Amino acid sequence: MTQSRMNFPAKKIEQFLSDALMALNVPAADSHTVAGLMVEADLLGYDTHGTFRLRQYVNRLRDGGNNPVAHVRTVHEQQATAIVDGDNGLGHLAMRHASDLAIEKARANGIGWVGVRNSNHAGPASLYVNMVAENDMIGIVGAVGSANHVAPFGGLDLLLGTNPLAIAIPAGEKPVFVLDMATTNAAAGKIKVLAQRGEQMPEGWMVDREGNPLTDPTRQSDGLLLPIGGAKGYGLAMAIGLIAGTLNGAAFGKDVVNFTKQTATATNTGQFVAAISIEAFGPVDAFKSTVDGIFGSFCESTPFPDGNPVRIPGQDRGNVRREREKNGIPLHPNLVKALTEIASELNIQELVAH
Amino acid sequence: MTQSRMNFPAKKIEQFLSDALMALNVPAADSHTVAGLMVEADLLGYDTHGTFRLRQYVNRLRDGGNNPVAHVRTVHEQQATAIVDGDNGLGHLAMRHASDLAIEKARANGIGWVGVRNSNHAGPASLYVNMVAENDMIGIVGAVGSANHVAPFGGLDLLLGTNPLAIAIPAGEKPVFVLDMATTNAAAGKIKVLAQRGEQMPEGWMVDREGNPLTDPTRQSDGLLLPIGGAKGYGLAMAIGLIAGTLNGAAFGKDVVNFTKQTATATNTGQFVAAISIEAFGPVDAFKSTVDGIFGSFCESTPFPDGNPVRIPGQDRGNVRREREKNGIPLHPNLVKALTEIASELNIQELVAH
Repeated sequence: MTQSRMNFPAKKIEQFLSDALMALNVPAADSHTVAGLMVEADLLGYDTHGTFRLRQYVNRLRDGGNNPVAHVRTVHEQQATAIVDGDNGLGHLAMRHASDLAIEKARANGIGWVGVRNSNHAGPASLYVNMVAENDMIGIVGAVGSANHVAPFGGLDLLLGTNPLAIAIPAGEKPVFVLDMATTNAAAGKIKVLAQRGEQMPEGWMVDREGNPLTDPTRQSDGLLLPIGGAKGYGLAMAIGLIAGTLNGAAFGKDVVNFTKQTATATNTGQFVAAISIEAFGPVDAFKSTVDGIFGSFCESTPFPDGNPVRIPGQDRGNVRREREKNGIPLHPNLVKALTEIASELNIQELVAH
Repeated sequence: MTQSRMNFPAKKIEQFLSDALMALNVPAADSHTVAGLMVEADLLGYDTHGTFRLRQYVNRLRDGGNNPVAHVRTVHEQQATAIVDGDNGLGHLAMRHASDLAIEKARANGIGWVGVRNSNHAGPASLYVNMVAENDMIGIVGAVGSANHVAPFGGLDLLLGTNPLAIAIPAGEKPVFVLDMATTNAAAGKIKVLAQRGEQMPEGWMVDREGNPLTDPTRQSDGLLLPIGGAKGYGLAMAIGLIAGTLNGAAFGKDVVNFTKQTATATNTGQFVAAISIEAFGPVDAFKSTVDGIFGSFCESTPFPDGNPVRIPGQDRGNVRREREKNGIPLHPNLVKALTEIASELNIQELVAH
């Protein structure tokens, strides 16, 4: 049986996260930035990529795998491109810097493409494409996954991550289009949540090393995540790995460090943020109005018999955000328990609901 | 029973294609360019996207849907971006222009992103990412498919194309990585080939309007192509449509014209070509050598029990090309018959094998 969740105000969670990071020697300003982005992920409903990840971040900062006092800097720059070096700090800091730089470059040149190296797990990629979309630009983010859970198509060795891709496209009256997808049928984070809740995986998410379906989420490390569309998802994961990782001088393939298990080792995580200025291609208002019309025609189109109306990716995130801003963020009891343990370990004030 | 194919030298096919286009008032230089790219597609083994498409191009040029005397031009330009207007000519001309411009912009700014409007079917997207990769750059191409064969996830109305995505990434000693994928489990072209050969489709490619599996390729127009990974492939197809179509002022959604059936109507096809200069991110040789190492580790990794070795997307294209350069391009008897009919219609010399 699934236990019921309890709601916590966003501000309380943010304060708790910030306290935890500061207790691990992350400077106050950086702690606030990261805590704010982690809570933003929760507010938007990316439950596997917000507060849920604190345990991993704490372990890495504690064991020396992450640098708490990172100096993020731009190390390589052309007119429309750059590499940002995250100095092995929390990935949110490098990705926020990269997003700002990509937006600035897109404003000046039509497009900005910023690669990131020496970064770490940065929460959901959608955080960063959203920043881009808020500036009337199309945002594209790719990342090398924080552990290899996927084999090449036709193979058994774990040489690939779920290597996510996110794309945000502004609309006018309609909600912004936000696609944030792993290149596997299931993201690793979703499986972690099922394991935490004691639930089973559907078939098609994973196979074991003999190719048999694997449905027990606690046996995740015995198997392989399956890419979407077989060879296509494999090719996409590989392309994202080469572009987000190798191109930026970051790890990809067998050099990828398991972010969760190797808590004392730098990961050299690679990511990229691209910003495409809509204005560079034509009037922004005309674009947005055309997009609204397209979204409308999709949502009003004929659904499958007995099915729900067609949806636009990301269309409900704004509603989830408003609801959670008002009523608080629901946290699973196992997560609350983990946060209580962290509070005790770090000797900080416990998270309370009010 | 499948009939055996006959081989034709690339040069003979190219001459035939060029003659056909010239007979339809395409200027000689443009005819040579397009014929060369169509044969290049055949040489690389993209059998559904080369000579196979001549019938469609002929019908459109004949019926006024395509402009034979197109003046491709750059209509909108920023430092690192541009829109190319294809003037409703053969899509190869607009895409070749766009690829050259993207490469030029990437050389100067680190990246070049060129959108295309008023274009048409341009053969396989890999032709253009290959041009980019030959310049030590990463090539990315997306396109709005030339007819709507796909419904939004959960819907029944044909509002989406297969909207392909191609990515080429240069290696050193190893073959270039080339991913060229439809965002559906099967591309429309593959189904056309099965229909021509009288073969059946496997389950999973299409469903009919009630959601039942559809395996008869001649009934393609009765059903929907299924996106890879369900909602993920839908989101990807939609993002590509918005970026390759809407952003460039090209058609996407219900405005998409059926390229095959509406032979007298301009399609306003949208595409994009992006070129990312490897040099802008670091030394090219170091990148290529790292890529070689990664490809090697993938190909030497453990295959599935009783399976073939792991492959890198596109790894065999070079071998196919060399073999076909030497021994000729195999054409299916039904395609040869179609070409003979075209020769008769256009009053040009028939294609002969020697």
